[in-house]
Amino acid sequence: MSRSTTWPDLAGRLVNSGHVLPVRVYFEDTDFSGVVYHGAYVHWCERGRSDFLRLLGVHHNELIDGSEPAAFVVRRMEFDFRAPARIDDVLEVHTNVESTRAADVWLSQIIRKDDKDICRARVQVVLVSQSGKPQRLSGRLRDAFGMGVAGKGKK
Amino acid sequence: MSRSTTWPDLAGRLVNSGHVLPVRVYFEDTDFSGVVYHGAYVHWCERGRSDFLRLLGVHHNELIDGSEPAAFVVRRMEFDFRAPARIDDVLEVHTNVESTRAADVWLSQIIRKDDKDICRARVQVVLVSQSGKPQRLSGRLRDAFGMGVAGKGKK
Amino acid sequence: MSRSTTWPDLAGRLVNSGHVLPVRVYFEDTDFSGVVYHGAYVHWCERGRSDFLRLLGVHHNELIDGSEPAAFVVRRMEFDFRAPARIDDVLEVHTNVESTRAADVWLSQIIRKDDKDICRARVQVVLVSQSGKPQRLSGRLRDAFGMGVAGKGKK
Amino acid sequence: MSRSTTWPDLAGRLVNSGHVLPVRVYFEDTDFSGVVYHGAYVHWCERGRSDFLRLLGVHHNELIDGSEPAAFVVRRMEFDFRAPARIDDVLEVHTNVESTRAADVWLSQIIRKDDKDICRARVQVVLVSQSGKPQRLSGRLRDAFGMGVAGKGKK
Repeated sequence: MSRSTTWPDLAGRLVNSGHVLPVRVYFEDTDFSGVVYHGAYVHWCERGRSDFLRLLGVHHNELIDGSEPAAFVVRRMEFDFRAPARIDDVLEVHTNVESTRAADVWLSQIIRKDDKDICRARVQVVLVSQSGKPQRLSGRLRDAFGMGVAGKGKK
Repeated sequence: MSRSTTWPDLAGRLVNSGHVLPVRVYFEDTDFSGVVYHGAYVHWCERGRSDFLRLLGVHHNELIDGSEPAAFVVRRMEFDFRAPARIDDVLEVHTNVESTRAADVWLSQIIRKDDKDICRARVQVVLVSQSGKPQRLSGRLRDAFGMGVAGKGKK
Repeated sequence: MSRSTTWPDLAGRLVNSGHVLPVRVYFEDTDFSGVVYHGAYVHWCERGRSDFLRLLGVHHNELIDGSEPAAFVVRRMEFDFRAPARIDDVLEVHTNVESTRAADVWLSQIIRKDDKDICRARVQVVLVSQSGKPQRLSGRLRDAFGMGVAGKGKK
Repeated sequence: MSRSTTWPDLAGRLVNSGHVLPVRVYFEDTDFSGVVYHGAYVHWCERGRSDFLRLLGVHHNELIDGSEPAAFVVRRMEFDFRAPARIDDVLEVHTNVESTRAADVWLSQIIRKDDKDICRARVQVVLVSQSGKPQRLSGRLRDAFGMGVAGKGKK
């Protein structure tokens, strides 16, 4: 609580129907070719999804209809790399809900550098219980995501 | 040279028309959910592609027709996650050439655990010069990959 | 430039004689034991050092006396782990200059959670040229760091 | 089991009083400076310790005297970096027991390239229960480690 006051943008911001998270390129994200390693984009997108949920106020015990604890896992991901990023760059991860179904969500994630799309991803996440079984999304969660989808349609 | 004698399987093995690389799941590959983090599969597939090229004997100065140095970069990747992996598991990364064109290659990569496919990936790599321009694959490289494709067809 | 306006705290802040950077614990930082993987602290400390230099306004071409490009590399690091961190935690990386010599700098780095030290590190960085030779720090750089050391002494 | 037959050296080898694990330098281990990122050595040392325990045949339920599950965690680590490693290098992680006490073990870990020490580490690991309390090492475990220490002394 006090941390979110001290560092107001640490979880990014809700914008329009989605979410944006700034990320800095550090040593750990680059490789010897001189540009960002392709695996770094996977980490950044996961951070974007986590902080999107965080700012939607969706807590773990609200994720499913029932009482069993559950978590989102990635079922499929597609990444298109269009231009490289480099050390010290500031990038933005833009996350939007593309569609929701009973037990899964498709997200569109775009990484931008100076307002240019350098990577576009689509990620399908599924809510599973600790035993690994897919779970229905709660109405509360679908509402939160659904507003995003509706908002997108109106643009 | 002496290292490859001491550790004969370190780069995996050429099998049929493709390549197989064993990977062990370590602490670094898991996350607090108890299973392997989805980003780890991206690293493992890159290791598989690197060692496949290594065992094909394709060295950097043979990668392109001209004289400029070049390297493969990932243009697109698609991952389907079917079952989890856990700490201490031994997995196998199976890599095959799906198709080659003038300047790019599509690879199929399957991660197996106990002979079961737990993750399937398709990765498009493009040969680019240091200045970032796509380069034509050398005949030598296309032959090496092409045999793989042909061999697959004959199975 | 415009990015630093949009996300004012992305590089942390200069405080007293040192620097503080907030970091969020994401999936990628944890392992199956349920807490943060010890290697994650090494990444966070590197981010702290990079952003400390960034806010000091020390650019690469000012790092050394001469004309050759140079970069800081880690020569030695010592980490003491005192308490675990967990997913979703907000931590702070506090970085201070401990001492400077002709060609190297010792930094003290403390990771805090709720104002409690959970990890303490000491890192020796050396300025080396691209060919790997240690370089003398510029007067400009020593001044920037020296103020930090002096400031610390006066507290 | 069948995996260890198929890939006999995947967990490295017990040698003299310690353990050696080969590691290949991949893209993921390097950074834009052209050499291996210092954080990669931390991962490699953890892999060495895990495989050392694996080949000693020490399983989780034998780690402590009592019945509570426990795991080794890193309490302190010290790394000295002496020379860089580069993409495609084959390195060896040599792990030896330096000393054992009631609840902790100090390990010496050396990373070699062409029989030259490029990195030397000392790592203190502590056995803790799931609730975070330090646990006494079992006699079985101390014996396994102790032979290593004794063997070293006789060299």
